[in-house]
Formats: sequence, structure tokens, C-alpha cells
Amino acid sequence: MSPKITTELLKQLRQVMKNPRYVQEPVQAYIVPSGDAHQSEYIAPCDCRRAFISGFDGSAGTAIVTEQHAAMWTDGRYFLQAAHQMDSNWTLMKMGLKDTPTQEDWLVSVLPEGSKVGVDPFIIPADQWKRMSKALRSAGHDLVPVKENLIDTIWTDCPQRPCKPLITLDLSYTGVSWRDKIVALRSKMAERKVMWFVVTALDEVAWLFNLRGSDVEYNPVFFAYAVIGMNTIRLFIDGDRMMDPAVREHLQLDSTLEPEFKIQVMPYGSILSELQAVGAGLSPKEKVWLSDKASYALTEAIPKAYRYLTPYTPICIAKAVKNAAETEGMRRAHIKDAVALCELFNWLEKEVPKGTVTEIVAADKAEEFRSQQKDFVELSFATISSTGPNGAIIHYKPVPETNRTLSVNEIYLLDSGAQYKDGTTDVTRTMHFGTPSAYEKECFTYVLKGHIAVSAAIFPNGTKGHLLDSFARSALWDCGLDYLHGTGHGVGSFLNVHEGPCGISYKTFADEPLEAGMIVSDEPGYYEDGSFGIRIENVVLVIPAETKYNFKNRGSLTFEPLTLVPIQTKMIDVNLLTEKECNWVNEYHQKCREVVGAELERQGRHEALRWLLRETEPLARVQ
Amino acid sequence: MSPKITTELLKQLRQVMKNPRYVQEPVQAYIVPSGDAHQSEYIAPCDCRRAFISGFDGSAGTAIVTEQHAAMWTDGRYFLQAAHQMDSNWTLMKMGLKDTPTQEDWLVSVLPEGSKVGVDPFIIPADQWKRMSKALRSAGHDLVPVKENLIDTIWTDCPQRPCKPLITLDLSYTGVSWRDKIVALRSKMAERKVMWFVVTALDEVAWLFNLRGSDVEYNPVFFAYAVIGMNTIRLFIDGDRMMDPAVREHLQLDSTLEPEFKIQVMPYGSILSELQAVGAGLSPKEKVWLSDKASYALTEAIPKAYRYLTPYTPICIAKAVKNAAETEGMRRAHIKDAVALCELFNWLEKEVPKGTVTEIVAADKAEEFRSQQKDFVELSFATISSTGPNGAIIHYKPVPETNRTLSVNEIYLLDSGAQYKDGTTDVTRTMHFGTPSAYEKECFTYVLKGHIAVSAAIFPNGTKGHLLDSFARSALWDCGLDYLHGTGHGVGSFLNVHEGPCGISYKTFADEPLEAGMIVSDEPGYYEDGSFGIRIENVVLVIPAETKYNFKNRGSLTFEPLTLVPIQTKMIDVNLLTEKECNWVNEYHQKCREVVGAELERQGRHEALRWLLRETEPLARVQ
Repeated sequence: MSPKITTELLKQLRQVMKNPRYVQEPVQAYIVPSGDAHQSEYIAPCDCRRAFISGFDGSAGTAIVTEQHAAMWTDGRYFLQAAHQMDSNWTLMKMGLKDTPTQEDWLVSVLPEGSKVGVDPFIIPADQWKRMSKALRSAGHDLVPVKENLIDTIWTDCPQRPCKPLITLDLSYTGVSWRDKIVALRSKMAERKVMWFVVTALDEVAWLFNLRGSDVEYNPVFFAYAVIGMNTIRLFIDGDRMMDPAVREHLQLDSTLEPEFKIQVMPYGSILSELQAVGAGLSPKEKVWLSDKASYALTEAIPKAYRYLTPYTPICIAKAVKNAAETEGMRRAHIKDAVALCELFNWLEKEVPKGTVTEIVAADKAEEFRSQQKDFVELSFATISSTGPNGAIIHYKPVPETNRTLSVNEIYLLDSGAQYKDGTTDVTRTMHFGTPSAYEKECFTYVLKGHIAVSAAIFPNGTKGHLLDSFARSALWDCGLDYLHGTGHGVGSFLNVHEGPCGISYKTFADEPLEAGMIVSDEPGYYEDGSFGIRIENVVLVIPAETKYNFKNRGSLTFEPLTLVPIQTKMIDVNLLTEKECNWVNEYHQKCREVVGAELERQGRHEALRWLLRETEPLARVQ
Repeated sequence: MSPKITTELLKQLRQVMKNPRYVQEPVQAYIVPSGDAHQSEYIAPCDCRRAFISGFDGSAGTAIVTEQHAAMWTDGRYFLQAAHQMDSNWTLMKMGLKDTPTQEDWLVSVLPEGSKVGVDPFIIPADQWKRMSKALRSAGHDLVPVKENLIDTIWTDCPQRPCKPLITLDLSYTGVSWRDKIVALRSKMAERKVMWFVVTALDEVAWLFNLRGSDVEYNPVFFAYAVIGMNTIRLFIDGDRMMDPAVREHLQLDSTLEPEFKIQVMPYGSILSELQAVGAGLSPKEKVWLSDKASYALTEAIPKAYRYLTPYTPICIAKAVKNAAETEGMRRAHIKDAVALCELFNWLEKEVPKGTVTEIVAADKAEEFRSQQKDFVELSFATISSTGPNGAIIHYKPVPETNRTLSVNEIYLLDSGAQYKDGTTDVTRTMHFGTPSAYEKECFTYVLKGHIAVSAAIFPNGTKGHLLDSFARSALWDCGLDYLHGTGHGVGSFLNVHEGPCGISYKTFADEPLEAGMIVSDEPGYYEDGSFGIRIENVVLVIPAETKYNFKNRGSLTFEPLTLVPIQTKMIDVNLLTEKECNWVNEYHQKCREVVGAELERQGRHEALRWLLRETEPLARVQ
């Protein structure tokens, strides 16, 4: 991976930052966030402006370019990758480390007095705008919206915005019709006394209407907004996809419906003017509900006094709690996914010693096995197939320049997942195809202890996920080790592999309490720069827990692993496990045998079945 | 404990809420916070306005009185106590429970449109004013400052504000002179480019000048403010205490000093006008540093553009990290405190079976034994001496109406501490003087496991205390149990027994990272309403930890218990402990034997020494 040469691009950007054709007054700094107009984490190629200007294409990062400097803020997952991808024009700002300045503090330290800092008002979320604008103003600078995106002005071969066909999901997948979802949303709106709700996140639009798309790779979403009134439904979407008879039928566009369920379809680009019209027509006390992460542009369309902003929307919260149909779908998807991975690991075990399997080959083979499974749609994120030192690059993606051959001497880390029509998967396994060193086993076992500590945790109803994060680290901390990322994220149901409002992280204090039906990942790790990476990840379902007592009748929760892929026992130093931990591994493997074994049998995959049976032999602890 | 009858008082308050003599316009609601003008937790009798109007005298709570309603917000520690102390005029708002409205939401739900909500601007912290004012304004109401405190207008026998003599502390206690503390503070001010620092918290004034007082019971502080400029020091303090030759000598009031160390002494009541004068004389870019918890009145004295507000002041942070002199003093204080408690428990063991020891007698006896120790000053908080069901009232204080006799049939919980000139103590032990039930032992052992999990935790430098809170609960959670309070608080050095900026709680996310030298309590518990209470509390010092590895060279921390009082082994179900936990108890008891045993020997307290030796016999775990 050689860095992108950005000298010329930065020169061009600095020119348009002063060009009156694009800016009312010259801006001394221009912020390029990583999101799109929907604050998506995964974005379409046309929205990869930060990657275009810097070369760094990780999923999280913010670039700021001033007349003299170019700086990139990203988190621990991407320190190595960003350092590799960016040239010497760029300064890497390692978020989470003590001495790294915030974007605001850095701007204040480098800008001349009374500077203007520009940003695209459609890309920056309103809450970030507010924070940054306040910090800059108090230092005598101004944050200004620049209507035309300045990156787009210099991006001559920018790809088109995608506009692909939609998939309709029936009740057997979703459990609840879009009409009933609208009814539930309106009842939440009535509770909070708001008259309008603006749906800006792409996965929220998709979930609400029981539709899926493929405008963004890995995330089955489509470019659209919706504005829900107490008696109206407006869907802002482009292209001829509304001409598809299946979609028209699904949305009952041609049926005689009660007016409050009649969907008005409008052009995607008309959202701002329509919202401004809504804003202009409000009577006193008529509030409009938006996420506080909606774009500054859309938020500003509603006069301040009429805004009702919350960190999580009622759709986000409803979407997180999976119903029986969704949970069953997720179970099915994870069984199929396990079948594919048993095939893959069985294959790798035979092929790796031959020295012909590279990271890319292994990733492709994983996709091949997954694609053989029923209702497979696509991958749920770019496969992290990494061996040896590449494993320490937390969100690594193999490319020809870095592609390493798997061997019997190095640890192999595979973090991968897929979109099936019935569910989304995300699983990480760390394997050794030769003989791991004592140190590698020791580190692996600490990570496993952390994984089990979260997975087996019992906690009261109403507990927020961030309160569980330290459980995942405790065994590592005892030996002076740690990892620089959160422990878990929400997972969608045939939707985004990362979703809110719950998670398990030392960083997220605004997460919503965990409740039965929520689905999160449990993925502690340990990374040694230049040597290896270890991560053990299951997707787990929040379920009620039976406890001996029941304090204040609150009830308790715990997790059930949905992922059912063996954890390599060769990597475990059994003597470091407690009896309880050892039993957990054995019971988990017993379940893999029973559930995935039956499916392998059913699919006639006998060799993979034999691999599964061997890999799930019970551990024996020496007393 | 019978509730205070408040019908007549509320009637009087509702009258003055409309009386133009006190309010410009009638207020429809009046907020009575629990603090004083320094946002102290423990307050002088003249500041106990919330207790006066409601009867509830716990350390935390906010009363709001409207024309129709009277409501009291308090936290889990005080639910039972508040319910006992308040009459039926009052509604108890249980903070931390899911369905309890915030003060703002409740006000919005009960107030007529366009209401005025009054509050004393000297009592409400600026950050609370801001939050509440914003919430009320967005619902069409107004928060208004009422200069004259309305409670004071109806409190005919309100006591005088105390003004007691000061104690000076030399370097052997403080480790750093007040001059050097001023130098360090000014260097922090220079770093942040502020010209003035306003010291509003009483313990910060006391710490800065190495002075102590006794204006507030249990907290060795005195009523004063200070305003530190880059070249000036102003101390606002009343009474003739500045005439004391020891104080004049200590502060070098009569010496020829460099002008920047010359202390100008001014009347306590002149702080507002002096601060307004400072505010009026500021040049552009001259900032004034205040805690964001300083009163609204003082904060408003500085024009908004000139304010520099932080949640924790540099004094608060410096004060939390104890130097070698302070740490050694704390160690000495805890050894003396342990001697007193060994005497007490030995005495209780003999006396309780006679049926003559009440909670008050036991508390008095504890004070008697403490007062025999060198440099004893006073108690550090009201002794919680509680047996049987009283133990479930988390911050119980025995009074004649509730006073219960200790017996061999009930659990006894003693949470007590003292101020010694060399340090502050705070220790809880839960004892049974007969034979505890299996269930009592089970619960005690879960609490002990939680206590050990925190005390023995190893964690990276820079970890915030709230990330350790779940460790204390994990064993309880496993059985469906929990406790409704935080796990630990910062402890001052011959200063307030509760101090910021660190702590261990699921609630505090704004805590500063733990660092070596900080001192906190570790006090998980379990409470069964109507039956018993269990809590095990040590004061612990944050120390560097030796670990096998050292990830990113961050270094690790752990805790060293300063409290050295036996944990009753009779209450422990040894079979529920892991080997590691069992070893922890045995090593802890070994240290109690060595350190406290030597001091008991030195003081010739042979009977207590025999008690200590018996109580610290090693536990034996059945394999």
C-alpha cells in the first residue's frame, strides 16, 4: 500500500477555498468529514470525499485542510492504515491518545485571527456543527456553511450517485408491516407532542418501509428521506424504482387507502425545499422531530423554536429491539454463515501449508462459501483477512500491495460477515495453522476470557452496554495489556452491520439501555504492532436471564451467542481458564456441534462436518 | 422518626412566593436546593433550608414547591429516610428509577402556561441554572433569580452563620506551602491564558491556604472565598479570625513580601461587588476562571465573554493527588482509626449479648475510642450505626425515635470516620454478634467479592473510575442482586470526606482519570428493605501496579487499602470465594495484624490486640 500523492489536489483545494465562485468569503480552513448527507458510516463512492482528498479510506476519519496544514483525525482502529495511506502532506491525529488535540483546539492553534472555517452543511451533523461552531466562535473564528461541496469542484471523475432497484421484505422477514410501524411511530410522536418526524438515516428509511436497496456497498440501503406527519407520509426517492410493480404493490401506491397511509413520492433533491415549506407553515407548539445527528442543512430548515432533537430517534430504538421474526431470521442466517466458515477453515487447513493461499484468496474463498448459502445477498462489510503483522491493523483490508501469504508460522485473523435476506452476520476468528507460541496462546486466552466475561455476564434490566466494557478488558488489564477499540456494536437485521443505539464501549455514554431482543457484537482483541492481531467476535442476542434472586423485581439479562463457529482450541492455554470459563467454551462448542452439525449434515457437507466435530472436542482442564 | 408537619410552613412559603416585598413578580414554583453559596455537600445549620421546609435532612436532595405541589428529588441512598421524614404534603421523586421525571419535566407537567420559577442565585450552581433555564424556556416558562432567599423570610429562628477560629497546617502535614500552591495555580492559569481564578468551594480555599476551620460540622472548612490574580491574592473572610497571631504568621500578613504573595483580606460579603468590579475592569482576552458549579450569582458577575468555566478546577485536581506528606498522614490516621475500631468491636462483642447497647451507645463509644487517638479533631460525618432493618436505610443516622438495641440476632452495620490533623478516615464494617444465617452470609460474601474485585483491580493509567464500577457489582448481578448507590468517592486529606474529581460510580462520567496518589473509597453493599444492610468499605490509595507486560508503555495502576480493620470472617461463606479472593482476604488480614497489631501493642491495648489476632486468623478454603 503506497500513500496517495496529494500535493496537487491540496493545491487545487486551497485555490477553491479562496475562489469567490464557490465561497462568499475565502475560508482559511475546510473540513471534510467522512459521512454523507445521511451521516452514514459506509458511503457510496461518490461520497468518499475524505478518501479522495487524503488517500485514507478507513470508515472513520475527518480531514481538515488549512492554507498551511492538512490533518486527519481517526481512531485506534485506523492509526496504522491511515499512516500507510497518506503522504507527508498529512499529519495524523490519533484520537483517544492523551496528547492529541481536538479538531477545535487544533484549528484554534493554527488559524490566523478571525478566520473562516468552511464545511458542507449537508455533510456535517447538527450536533457537531453546534459544538465546533461554539468552540471556534469563542476563539474569534467563524464556522461557515459552504453550499457547494469544495471537494466535488476539484473531483473531476467523481462517480454518479447510485440508484439501484429495491427489494421488498414481507412479514415473514420483518414481523411487522410498514403500516404498523407508521402507527407505532405516530404514537411516539403523539407522546412527545410532535407533529412531524424527519427520517434522515438511510437504514431508518429502509427499516420503516420494509424495503432494502443496494446503493451503498455492504449496507442494504437506498438513498431516500422520509417526512412523516400525523396524517401524511412523504418519501423522497429518485429513479424509476418506484415504477417496479413489486414495490408499488408493497407500498400500496395504487390502492385506495385511508389518506394517512397514502405515500406521496417526491424527488430526493426536494427534501430541503419541502422541509423549509413545512418549517414555514408551522403553528406555535407544532414541533418537528429530528435526530440531533441530522445534517446542519436540514436542521436549519426548521426554525429553532420548532425543533425537537434527540440523540436517538424512535425508529432507531424500535429497530434495535428485534421481534420474533427478525430474531429467528438472524438465527438462520448465523447457522448458514457458520456452515460457510466451517467449509472455509477446513479448506484453509488443507491449503495453507501448500503456501498458495494469500489473504485475498482466503477472503474470496470465504465469500464463495457464503454465496452458496440460501438468501445470500452480499457481504456485510469488507472482509478483514489478515495474517501476521497485518492482523495488527485493526480494520485492515487486503489489497495487492499488502497481500500476504498465509503460513503455518503466523496467526491468521478473519473478520467477515454477510447480508442474507433473513439476517446480517459479523464474526471474527483467529486461527493458527501450525503451532502457536506460548505467548500467542497466552494473549489469545486473555482475549477469550474477556469475550466470555461479556458473553456470560448477567446484569440488571436497564443496564447500559458501556457498563459491561471493562469486563472484556479485565484479564488483559491484569497483565498490563489492552486494546484501543470498543467491545461491541449493535447489529441490524438484514441491515447495517453497525447500528445504534446500543453498544459496548468505554467511549459511548449516550447509549440506550440494553433490552431483550437487542443484538450486539462481543469482540475484544489484542494487537501487537508489527507482529500479530487477535480478536474473537460473536454476534450475541440480549435475552432474559434466570437468577436466584430478583432485586426490586427488575429482572436480569444476559447474552445468547447467535454466531456458532468454533473458537480454535489449539490457541487456548487451558490452564489460564477458570472452571467456569472452560465450561463456557465446552457448552458453546457443544451447541455449535448440534446446531451447525445438523445443518452441515443436511447440506451433505461431510468433510466440513468432520472438521467441526474435531474442532469442538471438549477442553480438559488440568486441576 | 416521625415526619415533620409542614402544612403551615408551605402555606407561608406560598404566600411569600407572591409577596411583592420579596419577588418582582409572583413565582409559581420555588426551588430549594440542598447546597449553600459554595455548593457544599455538608452545610452549616443556617444553610439547611431544604431540611427546614421539608423535614428531610439527608445530604442530597432538591425540594420544589408550587402553588399545589411539593416534591423532593433524592437518590437511592435516601429513599427510605426521606419517606420517613416527610409528611403527606410531599411527593418523593426517586432519582435513578426509570419512571421518575426530572425536575424540569415535572415542572413542565404541573405548571400553568408562562410560569415563573424562582431560585436563590447564590445557591444554584451556574451549570444547573443553565440546564434548567433552557428546559423551562423551551416550554414557555422562566427561571428567575430571587435575591432574598424565600425560606429565610419564613425561618424565624434561623441560626447565625458560624465564624470559628482557624487551624494552621505546617509543611509536615501539607507537604507544600501555600505560596508554592499559589505559584502552581498561577502556572495553570498562564497555561490556559486566564488572568483571574475565583475559589468558591470551601475545601479549595482551605487546601490552597493550608488552613482548616470548623464552620461546618464534619468538614474542617471555614466560610471564605478567594480571588487569585496573576499578581494579587484576595481572601474574603469574616470575623476576628484574621487577628489570631498564628494565622497572621502562617499567611505572613505582617511580613514584607513580594507584592504577588501579599494577601489582601476582605469581608466575606464583599465577594459579589469585588467580582463585579473585576468583571467591569477586564480588557479583551482577559479571562476569569470559575468552576461551572460556582453559583449563578458569582458567575453572572463576570460578563459571559470573559468567563472560563471548567467542571473541575485546577485546585480540585491538584488537591486530589496526595503528595508524600499527605499520604503518610493518611496512613497514620488510618492506623489510629483501626486501633479505635478494634477497641470498639472487642467491646461490642462483650456488651451486645447483655442487651444494653443501642445504636446511639455504639456510635458514641466509637467516637470515644477515636477521640483517645492523637490529633483527633472530630468525626468526618454523622456515624451510621444501624442494626437489623435500620441497616437498609443507606444513610441512616440513629436518633432516639429509631434507636434500636444491638442483639445477637441481627446484622450490625457501622459506617464511621474521623478527622485527624493528619488525615480523614471513612470505614464501614458489617458484623454479626451471634450466628448469621446462610442467606446473610451469602449476601455478605457477594458484597465482599465486589469489594475485592475493585480493590485488586489492575487497570491502565488514565482509566476513569467509573469504568471500575461494574467490577463491584458483578458477583451480585450474577444472582440478580444490586445496590442503588455508587461504589466510591474521593476522600480529602484532613478535609471533606467526599471530594472530587474522581470516584467510582455508574453515574459519574465526568470524573477525571485516576492517577497514583488519588484516594477513593471502595464500598459496595447490599440492602434488603425491612431486613438488613451490608456494606464493606475501605479507603484505598491509587498506586502504580507491576504487570507482566506494558502495552504502549502506558503503565498500570491498582489500589492499596489504607483502611486496616478486620473484615468479619464469620460473615464469609468461604466456599463462594475463589482462591484469589481467599488469598486477598488473608493477605489483607495479615497486614492488619502487622501494622495495627504493632500500634495496639505500642498503645498497650492488649485485649483489643487479642481480638485483632483472633479476627485475622487465615481463612481456609475447602477444595
